[in-house]
Amino acid sequence: MSLKIALLGFGTVASGIPFLLEENGKKMTAALGTDIQISKVLVRDENEKQRLLDKGYHYDFVTSIDAIVSDPDCQIVVELMGRIEPAKTFILKALEAGKHVVTANKDLIALHGSEIRGFAEARNQAFYYEAAVAGGIPILRTLANSFTSDKITRVLGVLNGTSNYMMTKMVEEGWSYEEALSKAQALGYAESDPTNDVEGIDAAYKVAILSQFAFGTTIDFEEVRHQGISTITPDDVALAQQLGYVVKLIGSVEEKESGISAEVSPTFIPKEHPLASVNGVMNAVFVESIGIGQAMFYGPGAGQKPTATSVMADIIRIGRRLKDKTVGKPFNEFKREARLADKSDRTSHYYFAIETPDQKGQLLRLASIFNDQEVSFQQILQQKANAGRARLVIITHMMNQIQLDNLLQALADDQEFKLLNVFKVLGE
Amino acid sequence: MSLKIALLGFGTVASGIPFLLEENGKKMTAALGTDIQISKVLVRDENEKQRLLDKGYHYDFVTSIDAIVSDPDCQIVVELMGRIEPAKTFILKALEAGKHVVTANKDLIALHGSEIRGFAEARNQAFYYEAAVAGGIPILRTLANSFTSDKITRVLGVLNGTSNYMMTKMVEEGWSYEEALSKAQALGYAESDPTNDVEGIDAAYKVAILSQFAFGTTIDFEEVRHQGISTITPDDVALAQQLGYVVKLIGSVEEKESGISAEVSPTFIPKEHPLASVNGVMNAVFVESIGIGQAMFYGPGAGQKPTATSVMADIIRIGRRLKDKTVGKPFNEFKREARLADKSDRTSHYYFAIETPDQKGQLLRLASIFNDQEVSFQQILQQKANAGRARLVIITHMMNQIQLDNLLQALADDQEFKLLNVFKVLGE
Repeated sequence: MSLKIALLGFGTVASGIPFLLEENGKKMTAALGTDIQISKVLVRDENEKQRLLDKGYHYDFVTSIDAIVSDPDCQIVVELMGRIEPAKTFILKALEAGKHVVTANKDLIALHGSEIRGFAEARNQAFYYEAAVAGGIPILRTLANSFTSDKITRVLGVLNGTSNYMMTKMVEEGWSYEEALSKAQALGYAESDPTNDVEGIDAAYKVAILSQFAFGTTIDFEEVRHQGISTITPDDVALAQQLGYVVKLIGSVEEKESGISAEVSPTFIPKEHPLASVNGVMNAVFVESIGIGQAMFYGPGAGQKPTATSVMADIIRIGRRLKDKTVGKPFNEFKREARLADKSDRTSHYYFAIETPDQKGQLLRLASIFNDQEVSFQQILQQKANAGRARLVIITHMMNQIQLDNLLQALADDQEFKLLNVFKVLGE
Repeated sequence: MSLKIALLGFGTVASGIPFLLEENGKKMTAALGTDIQISKVLVRDENEKQRLLDKGYHYDFVTSIDAIVSDPDCQIVVELMGRIEPAKTFILKALEAGKHVVTANKDLIALHGSEIRGFAEARNQAFYYEAAVAGGIPILRTLANSFTSDKITRVLGVLNGTSNYMMTKMVEEGWSYEEALSKAQALGYAESDPTNDVEGIDAAYKVAILSQFAFGTTIDFEEVRHQGISTITPDDVALAQQLGYVVKLIGSVEEKESGISAEVSPTFIPKEHPLASVNGVMNAVFVESIGIGQAMFYGPGAGQKPTATSVMADIIRIGRRLKDKTVGKPFNEFKREARLADKSDRTSHYYFAIETPDQKGQLLRLASIFNDQEVSFQQILQQKANAGRARLVIITHMMNQIQLDNLLQALADDQEFKLLNVFKVLGE
C-alpha cells in the first residue's frame, strides 16, 4: 500500500516534491518498501486550482483543510504555506485527526514549536521539521542522532542566505549595504520588505530551534538577542580585512557556566576559520563539542530542491517509523532543564568603531571610559582624520554583556564620541 | 538494566570511551533510558593487564575472546584492535555468539565488509562502523538517513588526515614532500611506514565504504584506482597556486552513465571550492546531488576523542534499536546493482607536468602526441629552461581514462619527454 501524503500549499518548495518523486522514486520506494503518493493538495481557491491544472499538475486539489483531515487514506500532512496562520491551525487540526505532520516553517516552529510538539507528542504522532533550519543541510537530524554521544559546547551558524549573499558581496566586491540589498532584491534572494533577513530575525528563529537540538533547551525567540547587518559600512568591512577577519552575520548558542546564551550578531570571523569561506547564499553550522571537537555542516540554506529534499527526508523517516511501529518518538529526544546564562557570563571579544573630533587627548579619554568598565584592548587603530573627525577602532579582550551595556551607555552619554558600530569578534 | 559493552583492545581510541562515559554519561543515559557499562576488556596479555591496572583502569581485563563471547551479560562487542586478524575472527565469533558489533576498523570493512555484513544480517544483528570513515564526521549515518530522499551524483573527500596535513604544509609553507613527511612522523601523524597514508591506500579504503552508502554499491578495494602524494614536488604545488588551484589528495566516487567510478588521486581544487580550505589533519566529504545540490561535512578525521565519539554514537544507536526492537536493520539499507563505469566514461580534466630538452619544436611535438589522442589543452605553460631542460605544464579539457592510459604509454615510449606528474583537476 502506498504512503499517502497531502500538501498544504503548492508554491516553490512544494513543487520540488513531484520532481523528487519523479527523479528519485526508485530509491525512496526501496527505502520504504512502498511508493509515496500525493493524495491531496490544498490550494487557496478555485483560481489557483485552475492555474495549476492548466500547468499540467493533475493532483486532487482541494480548497478546504477539512477535505484533507477527513481523508482516511492520507497519513502525512506536509505544511508548506509559511507564516503563522492559518498554518498553525491547520497543523493542529491535522494532528488532531491522527495525521503525522512535516513542515519547513521556521517562524512557526520558533514561535509556537513547544505547543505543537506537545500536542503531537501527547498523541504519539510525528511532527518533523528538518527543513526549518539551514534548508538543505540535514543538521537537526544529525544533532539529534549523531551527537547523542557528544556534549556540545557551542554552535555557530551562517543561517540566513540572503544576508550572507549581501555580506559576501560587501566583502568581495566592496559594495555598500544599499547596493547589496538592491541586488539581492533584483535576484529574488531578498523580499521587498527584507526586515526578517537583514535584521537577524530569521537567523534568531533558527538559533532558537538549534538550541533545542544542541542543548535540549527550549529558548523563547524573545530571549535571542539579535542585531542585523543594516548598519555595516564598507569601512567596517575593510577594517575587518585589514585586521585579518571577515564579517559575517553569525547566530550562536553556547553553554556557559550559568546557562545557555543565544545571540545573532555581525561577527568578525578569523580568515582561516572554516565559517569565513562560507559564501553567497550558502549556509553552514559549526559545532564545537567535547568529543568531536570541531565539525561543520555546509550546504544551501534555501531553494526549491534543497528544501523539498529535506521535507522528503522527514516524510521517509515517518514512513520508516510507521513500518517499525516507532512513529511516536519525538523528532528530538534530547530535553533537559537549563536556564539562560547570566549577562556576566555571556562573554566575547568585541569590535567598536567610534568617531571623535580630531583633537588631542581623545584616545586617552576613550581608553579611560573602557578602563572604567575594566575592558582592555587587544588591538587599537586610529584612522586618518577626515573633515575634522577621526575614527578609532578597537578590538577588546574578552568582556561580558554587563560591561557591554555599560559601555554603550557611557558612549551614548558622551557628547564627543559617536559609536558607529559594535560587533562580536570570534577568538580565544 | 545497564547496556553492557565489551571492548576488544584498549589503545588510544578505546581509552576515549571512559572519558565520554564520565563527561557525557547523563546525556547518554537519558537518550537510552539506561546507563552504559564496560563489562569486559580484552587485552593482549597479563603484562598489558597489569600496566592498565597500574594506570588506574579498574575494568574486568581478560586475555581471551572466549571470556567475552561466552558472557551472557555483554550485548555489544566493540572492536578497536585494528588490522585484519585477529579482529575479523573475533568479530565473527562475537556475532555468532549473538553479540552486536561496533568497529572503527576501515581496513577490515573495506576488505571484508561484505562478508561480515552478510554474516550479521543473516542473524539480525547490528554491525555498525561510523568511525571507519572520516573519524569524527558522522558521514555514514547522514548518507544512510538524510540522503534517502536525494540522489547523489558525486562524492569528493579529503579522507586522510596525515596526507592532508602534509599537503597543507607543502602548500602553505613550501615544504618538500620529505620535509612534510618527517614532520608528520615527528608529530605522530604518520607511522614509521607511512605507505597506507601517503600512497592513497587508506583513502581508497574509505572511498570503497563511501560508495556503499552514497550509491548502494559495493566496490572492491582493488577497483579503486589510487595514486598517492609521494611524487608531488614544490614545483607542482607552486604551479597549482599560480593557476588558481590548491593540490589535495582527493577520494572520489561518482555515478557515470555506464556505472560507478571510484578513485583516489592528487587533485587540483579551484581555490574558491569549499574543499580547498580543508586544512591540516581535518577531513571533509563534499556531496553533490540532484536535490540538495552541494553539501559538505567537515571535521576531524581521526584522534582519540572524535573516533571514540563516533563509536559511542553507534553503541547508543544499537541501544535505542534494542529498545525499539528494530536492531536487525542493517547500518546501510541502500543496496542496488550497479556496475563499474567504463574507462571511456571516466572523465576528468588532467594536469601534466613534462620535462623536455630545451630545443625548438618540442611543444609542437608534444601537442601532436596529445592531439593523436584527441585531447585538447585548456591551459599550457612553458617554464624557463634550467640546465638545458624545459618544463611544460598542461591542463587538459575533459578526457577519459582510455585517453589517459594511451597518453601515458605514448609519453613513456618517447625518448625525449619525461613525464614528471599527472594529477586530476576539478572543474566543469
